[in-house]
Amino acid sequence: MKATHVPALILLGTAGTIVAAQSGTPPTSPVPYPEGYRTWTHVKSTVIGPTHKSFATVGGFQHIYANAPAMAGYRSRAFPEGAIIAFEWLEMRDNQGAFAEGPRRQLDVMIKDSTRFASTGGWGFQRFAKDSKTELAATPTSRQCFACHDQRRKDGLVLSTYRP
Amino acid sequence: MKATHVPALILLGTAGTIVAAQSGTPPTSPVPYPEGYRTWTHVKSTVIGPTHKSFATVGGFQHIYANAPAMAGYRSRAFPEGAIIAFEWLEMRDNQGAFAEGPRRQLDVMIKDSTRFASTGGWGFQRFAKDSKTELAATPTSRQCFACHDQRRKDGLVLSTYRP
Repeated sequence: MKATHVPALILLGTAGTIVAAQSGTPPTSPVPYPEGYRTWTHVKSTVIGPTHKSFATVGGFQHIYANAPAMAGYRSRAFPEGAIIAFEWLEMRDNQGAFAEGPRRQLDVMIKDSTRFASTGGWGFQRFAKDSKTELAATPTSRQCFACHDQRRKDGLVLSTYRP
Repeated sequence: MKATHVPALILLGTAGTIVAAQSGTPPTSPVPYPEGYRTWTHVKSTVIGPTHKSFATVGGFQHIYANAPAMAGYRSRAFPEGAIIAFEWLEMRDNQGAFAEGPRRQLDVMIKDSTRFASTGGWGFQRFAKDSKTELAATPTSRQCFACHDQRRKDGLVLSTYRP
């Protein structure tokens, strides 16, 4: 059913990534870097501590930020077009049990655009490398992101909740 | 020198707390609860983990939020009138090394008003109890807060820095 909503503007790549084609839009990533996300609303945080089995690869802070449309979505669980959620991964420094923020590991972004991302539930997904605006094309793919997020349809495909 | 700047409106209590008197202002705390602080800019976070010696009393997340005037101050280190910084203490839940946010322990607030708080470097300090808007009049007193913050005069008496 979703396939019928994919417009001619969008081509679905073989790896499940979505690419723009034949339009006025430059052929860049369909999910732009979320400029200014650090000033958006802080939704919540989690920390992967030193005793966690995956500390070596994902240890540290996870901060979630939402732009204004996304904040409306957190309240209604119906995320409007233009909603953007930034999931920031930071390393941490352990000072005798007090943890401080370290450099950024990566930044995950999801953006709501039902037309462009019709094949992945209306959301586009992208990971940016370390403290840069360089896209990470490796895993997870947009399809892999979607597979997990799609299990939370009742929540608008967003896993987190806002802590008022 | 500071004492000469204390206006007649303000009386300095015996315990170092500041109380309003004889004005149109209701006789409530001079530092109001920072309504909406959760939507202000998230400055940074720290975590006191389970292995920290003070975990039992202060373990968990510490999130710092700043209103727009305070954000200008973080950039210039000259905090303008009306700057408010909210320091939020949350308990935490440890799920095999993954830490989730728990209920609020307390909320510390500092607000810049050079006239009203001339005796404490232009900043008023207040702690609110748990997840309430009830002031905690116990320790630390406004004077005790000031004694520590005053050691950072070059930074505008603010201990934290903004993580861009």
